[in-house]
Amino acid sequence: MRTAYYAQMSELNALLARMCELSGTAMERSTEALLTANLAVAEHVISDHEHIRAMSAMAEERAFGLLARQAPVAGDLRSIVTTFQVVADIDRMGALALHVAKVARRRHPMRALPPEVESSFADMGAVAVTMARTAGAALASQNVDDARRLQVDDDRMDELHQHLFTVLTDRTWHHGIGAGVDVTLLGRYYERFADHAVLIGRRVVFQATGLPPDRTADSPPQSLSG
Amino acid sequence: MRTAYYAQMSELNALLARMCELSGTAMERSTEALLTANLAVAEHVISDHEHIRAMSAMAEERAFGLLARQAPVAGDLRSIVTTFQVVADIDRMGALALHVAKVARRRHPMRALPPEVESSFADMGAVAVTMARTAGAALASQNVDDARRLQVDDDRMDELHQHLFTVLTDRTWHHGIGAGVDVTLLGRYYERFADHAVLIGRRVVFQATGLPPDRTADSPPQSLSG
Repeated sequence: MRTAYYAQMSELNALLARMCELSGTAMERSTEALLTANLAVAEHVISDHEHIRAMSAMAEERAFGLLARQAPVAGDLRSIVTTFQVVADIDRMGALALHVAKVARRRHPMRALPPEVESSFADMGAVAVTMARTAGAALASQNVDDARRLQVDDDRMDELHQHLFTVLTDRTWHHGIGAGVDVTLLGRYYERFADHAVLIGRRVVFQATGLPPDRTADSPPQSLSG
Repeated sequence: MRTAYYAQMSELNALLARMCELSGTAMERSTEALLTANLAVAEHVISDHEHIRAMSAMAEERAFGLLARQAPVAGDLRSIVTTFQVVADIDRMGALALHVAKVARRRHPMRALPPEVESSFADMGAVAVTMARTAGAALASQNVDDARRLQVDDDRMDELHQHLFTVLTDRTWHHGIGAGVDVTLLGRYYERFADHAVLIGRRVVFQATGLPPDRTADSPPQSLSG
């Protein structure tokens, strides 16, 4: 019974790892669409989103199946409940990548980003994609070191996010409030994407060690304006 | 066995209902702190936040207890898993109220809000508080009508949120980009608070009827700038 449980839990984590990678690919494409005002790439992310949702529904059904058939107890029970939370995190990461793609689509054929913040978003996109892949690797391997590395990447994301506000509130900003609103919301989408990857890492640590994850990964910017 | 299960599930939902009300109270106070630049009220929300977190941990423990002791199947099993998702929603509502309080504290003794948007935030705050209370009532009563009313309130929240962007991107806005960033993020916090209340309503509908909730409540603004 426990052998079957572990085999199925391992398959489920492999599915979650693939979903994480897909959310990373979505954010990679959304960032490309945003930086190059590429409508086709944005549309690709938007139409692919249903695929992540369908995989989420499948992952939840498998987790229900495990709960119902294997009737796990103690730590195993907690691991499966954690799985539902991981599905919710990945779903949210997919939704945030979708939001970015929709901003790129809405602004097409213009670029949504003023030149001053392009490199920040290129960097935030790269960090986000790395984090999604690391979260996927942590899920697949149940490797606690992978999971903990996410915290370091998140600190980098927070730095990039803070820097964005420095650029926005600099006196030389001349792109108006509309572009400022776009940049503010886009920055928040990348930051939250990273937060969910961190939460997945903490949930893997919990699955592997029993240490409870802290639920709060959201650290909003401390200094928005002068 | 099933009688014990239903009694404990009902107690758990009553606990979740109280937590929802607390998150509503937190948002009510945060809005007051924001509108009146009241530092003491902001600090009150910030120090009370640990109380909601502690109740979340307690609610999760009770749900684990129910899963472990009652070994529910089929619909009952799904209801308990839903409970973990409701806890996550309420946790997030508490965190969003906390973010609002922190903006009020950061700007003190100044007001974070320019006068043009004060009434919008007063209205968004009132809608958010009503929604938290309706979500709490829906959890306690398992009343599907309460749950569905949340969708109507959320439409109102979306309207208020859209209006905010109209004010922000109006040519007469003269409060600078820093205030614009604050208003953009604050607006997002209220909108997401409402989204989580809607999700709780959908989860109650699922618990009561077995109809699966749509996971996406987040509808980001469609037209940010001109």
